[in-house]
Amino acid sequence: MTKEDVTEMILSAKRTTGMKWEDIAEKIGMSPVWTHSAAMGMNAMPKDKAEAMVSVMGLPQEAALVLQEYPTKIWEQAVPTDPCVYRLYEIVGVYGPTIKTLIQEEFGDGIMSAIDFDMQITRVANPKGDRVKIEMSGKFLGYNSW
Amino acid sequence: MTKEDVTEMILSAKRTTGMKWEDIAEKIGMSPVWTHSAAMGMNAMPKDKAEAMVSVMGLPQEAALVLQEYPTKIWEQAVPTDPCVYRLYEIVGVYGPTIKTLIQEEFGDGIMSAIDFDMQITRVANPKGDRVKIEMSGKFLGYNSW
Amino acid sequence: MTKEDVTEMILSAKRTTGMKWEDIAEKIGMSPVWTHSAAMGMNAMPKDKAEAMVSVMGLPQEAALVLQEYPTKIWEQAVPTDPCVYRLYEIVGVYGPTIKTLIQEEFGDGIMSAIDFDMQITRVANPKGDRVKIEMSGKFLGYNSW
Amino acid sequence: MTKEDVTEMILSAKRTTGMKWEDIAEKIGMSPVWTHSAAMGMNAMPKDKAEAMVSVMGLPQEAALVLQEYPTKIWEQAVPTDPCVYRLYEIVGVYGPTIKTLIQEEFGDGIMSAIDFDMQITRVANPKGDRVKIEMSGKFLGYNSW
Amino acid sequence: MTKEDVTEMILSAKRTTGMKWEDIAEKIGMSPVWTHSAAMGMNAMPKDKAEAMVSVMGLPQEAALVLQEYPTKIWEQAVPTDPCVYRLYEIVGVYGPTIKTLIQEEFGDGIMSAIDFDMQITRVANPKGDRVKIEMSGKFLGYNSW
Amino acid sequence: MTKEDVTEMILSAKRTTGMKWEDIAEKIGMSPVWTHSAAMGMNAMPKDKAEAMVSVMGLPQEAALVLQEYPTKIWEQAVPTDPCVYRLYEIVGVYGPTIKTLIQEEFGDGIMSAIDFDMQITRVANPKGDRVKIEMSGKFLGYNSW
Amino acid sequence: MTKEDVTEMILSAKRTTGMKWEDIAEKIGMSPVWTHSAAMGMNAMPKDKAEAMVSVMGLPQEAALVLQEYPTKIWEQAVPTDPCVYRLYEIVGVYGPTIKTLIQEEFGDGIMSAIDFDMQITRVANPKGDRVKIEMSGKFLGYNSW
Amino acid sequence: MTKEDVTEMILSAKRTTGMKWEDIAEKIGMSPVWTHSAAMGMNAMPKDKAEAMVSVMGLPQEAALVLQEYPTKIWEQAVPTDPCVYRLYEIVGVYGPTIKTLIQEEFGDGIMSAIDFDMQITRVANPKGDRVKIEMSGKFLGYNSW
Amino acid sequence: MTKEDVTEMILSAKRTTGMKWEDIAEKIGMSPVWTHSAAMGMNAMPKDKAEAMVSVMGLPQEAALVLQEYPTKIWEQAVPTDPCVYRLYEIVGVYGPTIKTLIQEEFGDGIMSAIDFDMQITRVANPKGDRVKIEMSGKFLGYNSW
Amino acid sequence: MTKEDVTEMILSAKRTTGMKWEDIAEKIGMSPVWTHSAAMGMNAMPKDKAEAMVSVMGLPQEAALVLQEYPTKIWEQAVPTDPCVYRLYEIVGVYGPTIKTLIQEEFGDGIMSAIDFDMQITRVANPKGDRVKIEMSGKFLGYNSW
Repeated sequence: MTKEDVTEMILSAKRTTGMKWEDIAEKIGMSPVWTHSAAMGMNAMPKDKAEAMVSVMGLPQEAALVLQEYPTKIWEQAVPTDPCVYRLYEIVGVYGPTIKTLIQEEFGDGIMSAIDFDMQITRVANPKGDRVKIEMSGKFLGYNSW
Repeated sequence: MTKEDVTEMILSAKRTTGMKWEDIAEKIGMSPVWTHSAAMGMNAMPKDKAEAMVSVMGLPQEAALVLQEYPTKIWEQAVPTDPCVYRLYEIVGVYGPTIKTLIQEEFGDGIMSAIDFDMQITRVANPKGDRVKIEMSGKFLGYNSW
Repeated sequence: MTKEDVTEMILSAKRTTGMKWEDIAEKIGMSPVWTHSAAMGMNAMPKDKAEAMVSVMGLPQEAALVLQEYPTKIWEQAVPTDPCVYRLYEIVGVYGPTIKTLIQEEFGDGIMSAIDFDMQITRVANPKGDRVKIEMSGKFLGYNSW
Repeated sequence: MTKEDVTEMILSAKRTTGMKWEDIAEKIGMSPVWTHSAAMGMNAMPKDKAEAMVSVMGLPQEAALVLQEYPTKIWEQAVPTDPCVYRLYEIVGVYGPTIKTLIQEEFGDGIMSAIDFDMQITRVANPKGDRVKIEMSGKFLGYNSW
Repeated sequence: MTKEDVTEMILSAKRTTGMKWEDIAEKIGMSPVWTHSAAMGMNAMPKDKAEAMVSVMGLPQEAALVLQEYPTKIWEQAVPTDPCVYRLYEIVGVYGPTIKTLIQEEFGDGIMSAIDFDMQITRVANPKGDRVKIEMSGKFLGYNSW
Repeated sequence: MTKEDVTEMILSAKRTTGMKWEDIAEKIGMSPVWTHSAAMGMNAMPKDKAEAMVSVMGLPQEAALVLQEYPTKIWEQAVPTDPCVYRLYEIVGVYGPTIKTLIQEEFGDGIMSAIDFDMQITRVANPKGDRVKIEMSGKFLGYNSW
Repeated sequence: MTKEDVTEMILSAKRTTGMKWEDIAEKIGMSPVWTHSAAMGMNAMPKDKAEAMVSVMGLPQEAALVLQEYPTKIWEQAVPTDPCVYRLYEIVGVYGPTIKTLIQEEFGDGIMSAIDFDMQITRVANPKGDRVKIEMSGKFLGYNSW
Repeated sequence: MTKEDVTEMILSAKRTTGMKWEDIAEKIGMSPVWTHSAAMGMNAMPKDKAEAMVSVMGLPQEAALVLQEYPTKIWEQAVPTDPCVYRLYEIVGVYGPTIKTLIQEEFGDGIMSAIDFDMQITRVANPKGDRVKIEMSGKFLGYNSW
Repeated sequence: MTKEDVTEMILSAKRTTGMKWEDIAEKIGMSPVWTHSAAMGMNAMPKDKAEAMVSVMGLPQEAALVLQEYPTKIWEQAVPTDPCVYRLYEIVGVYGPTIKTLIQEEFGDGIMSAIDFDMQITRVANPKGDRVKIEMSGKFLGYNSW
Repeated sequence: MTKEDVTEMILSAKRTTGMKWEDIAEKIGMSPVWTHSAAMGMNAMPKDKAEAMVSVMGLPQEAALVLQEYPTKIWEQAVPTDPCVYRLYEIVGVYGPTIKTLIQEEFGDGIMSAIDFDMQITRVANPKGDRVKIEMSGKFLGYNSW
């Protein structure tokens, strides 16, 4: 049983039950972003969350072990084509140097961690058309000198 | 006088005056992210902001016209190498499909606009090490059927 | 049942019935461009159109659900090789900067949306050889300053 | 004197005179799309149009010869990064196979020429936000058998 | 039944019968280049030729329909590795600008069509070693101004 | 003095004298294709032809030495963008496997040389539009076994 | 039966019999380099050698026909990753311009053929560590002028 | 003074004196391959050879220091376009796996060093056309287990 | 039975037995790095180690032969995407020129071998967060002159 | 004054004084790896180290400011060609998955930081040939769940 297999099972159970990611996330007591990412095999679940997932989605017991495995994160398109994902890539292209400069002006030379990291996605009502809000938070890591 | 020339002048005046981007942004009444991006030539300034910029930074008058020109946005590295920018690219690779799914589950088929878009970067104090917070907000655009 | 499966079924029913895309489009009350694109799995169908498609093409009921799923739009050739598609790519290469300049001279800094977008393709009779006419229409989206 | 030099001169004269592309195009009796493209060095001008251009923009006489030279059309980004141009690339990626199918269903196996080709760009007023309209027209060319 | 299937059947029948491409071409009344290309699925056959092919090679009747379908022309190697094909690529690299210049000096700005196109390949006896002769002929297409 | 310098001088003299490549080729007693290619620095001239070129075009004596140097043949675009050159690339993509098969069916396993090679380009009058004819001839080279 | 199938059979028979490539080569009266290359499907065998191979390795009779087919030579990694193959690529990168210069200083403008070509690999004893010796020999081919 | 500068000086002195690489190599007591490579800046010269080079070619004294510097070896074309260099690349593509197999069958798992390496290039007379002979020799390096 | 098959078997046995790589390595008397690498098919095992592996993991006897085969080392991502592997790639990008300079200042022109090479990975306790220590050791190989 | 300018000055002063990187590093009280990297513009120096560098190397005062600027880390070759740097890239290709597995087996899912990172390079005497030792140490960063 591979992570791909478990992803398939989760998607299939999700279709059957009609749950949304928000529902699943709430039932296992985690955020929707992290829950979806782990379900897609892009993050590993701690034991208790993997077992909760198995129970919530009615998966076979072995799936709990697979959800705990540490994934090798692979994406095949260096430049993504899906318009919704491409827009994020475009934001990195256009605003990447700006983000770098403002982080480093505030914190010193270093980066925002993509490992000690979390993210939320929410809807913001707006009379001119509702907006998507993405909030990312990562630990600042400063360069070492030695 | 090109956008590159004006960027050079702004950076040079910034060094001389010791202002931070936050200071410059405040003086022209805009956010630091947008101010830096426009100063780098990745966004065009409305007339009043361009003139404020010229006055705040002591630029020649012609610079106000250049700051109002609509840029051609070019980045040369399809995959960025600078670690601070690469981490953002990595976030798109790892979490892109998750962001897409959660946006579309909430809003229907469509995207978060990267045009009708804004962003803030802030420091969040944390006992385990301060964190960088990036908040993006873009208008949801739904696919048309016709 | 995947979108690829449903595409296969539609193409097979189309071959059997001898309908053209124009006929199918008319029967579901949509344009040929959008109809074909959704049948290929590059657009999602609203519920009523998906059900009309199922009924017109004699597809199994489950296909209506699949046609409503939001696709991940992927194309594998960054530069297309098929001559008919390549010519469009070439037009973007040759005229892209011109289109950008004329849009922005008219509307201000921004883009033509590829999401709030529609297109028609028609034949124009011409004594020197008939011509293909492609009409694209997309909402203008202006860049934000903040 | 190269095509790049002449492009520079035209842009500079345009800035000085405040003419829009539409104005220049009208004065030389051609469309704005073609006029801009030829001014950018992506198309060659017939003798009378080159001379009109020189006269309208106040260019040196040698520029008329340069405008008549046949350009080598080069674009350096296989996938364009500027958002306004990228959206066109995206349209080719998403709708390319659809355009091919509908052209060939109507005309038989062949392509829309990108050489015997013309294009118009116009603004279409719309209460939900004005729209950009791009109309392309190219001669159908059928494949040979021999 | 796909074009790949029909290609397989033709190659298999060719092996069994011992016919050369020249023989097959002659029997269906077309040139060897076009016959091979259509058999490989890189060109569509008109109805009569498709039926002749089916009869000559002893293919099932459905193959005649498949041979008439309009192919999507795909090649996977942007730079071919097979030495015999690479040499052609090399000729385009070395002589491409020369061919362009001489065509345009003779005809004006434009191209040789690769659609309204034909080709012959013949052996030319030569005491220093026989030579391959490739003759290409394509309609000249002149750029439009509008 | 580099090959690029000599190319510049030849093009400049050509503009001044109004000679066509055909004229220049005839004066040095070579074909237009080879003459242009050598003038562009993609082939080396034998001593007598280099001296004829210098005399015909009124070049400085040192140019004759430069024209005799063996060039390093470089092209920067793996896939050419100029439409006139791209069509040739497309022909290699579409017909490359066909050319390979027909050469090898006639001659045995091997290639058409791109070194012991020559080419002619001519206009062929045609009531439906004149055609470009390209004739290539290269020595067949058979693979060795040892 | 494809070339891949025959390669599989040869490798399997080689494992069973414990023969080395040198042994196989000797038994069919050819060099080890060519024998291995043809067994891998990168060269075609003349009839007698193909039949010898079938007999030596105990292959089915059809394999002799397959070994005579002319291969399409494909390698998938433009830059090889296997260290033993990469070192050869590196030698071409470092010494390619040197090899070119020395060949052309000795022979005139032209190349070493990779078609009319042969190679030997031998061990050379050396007190500081034995050495691999690779000897390549290819016919010189001079550029044509015409 | 850079390695590029010294290469320029050597080439210029070589042109003036009419020496061949073989002559230069003999005068400094090294092989032509190594001498050319070091002159091109792709290898570093030991002190005595650098001083011999300076004396033989009449270079300024500083050049001896530059010739001793350790180069960063860079080639810009992952796939070389010059036909003479490409043929070597093609040999690596076609025969790379064969060379690997035969080396490893003889020596065990490992590689031929490209560092402890030497090469000779010679002409071999042949009635069917003289041949280029390239002899490479590199120390075998076996993989470690630990 | 391929190397992939054996890797599968080892991973499966490892899961069942709950051994860590350190345990397996100790049982076969080798280091964890080399043991894992060979188990993944990226290194060949000497006979005694292959047999120990078979015995420790309860593999079928044929696996011992497969573990001794010399692998072709292939990695498919020129730039790795997995964050843990990418960080190593980033270190090569940032510190590669530094490593080169310091090695060559100490040893002379040459390289650290990646063949006569070994590596250890250990945990280093640290009050600010434990650290990963990677120790690489490779034989220095100096460039030859000849 | 850019980072490139300061690098030039440091290299020039180093040549004049004959200091080795080890000497420079010792004088500013840092390691050779970090000192070289910062001198190359790939790391920023804290104020005191920048001033020490200026004093040790006799640089103009402005250089101290430049050495403190936060660099944008760019490398242009996705796959490095210099053999000494390539070997490091190869090690990442061959051993990357092994390093990942062993880190994660020891620490849990996460990475070795390339930011909170240090490295030493030393010579290890060895009777079979001295060895290069590279020691890397980076803080372990565990993935977050949220």
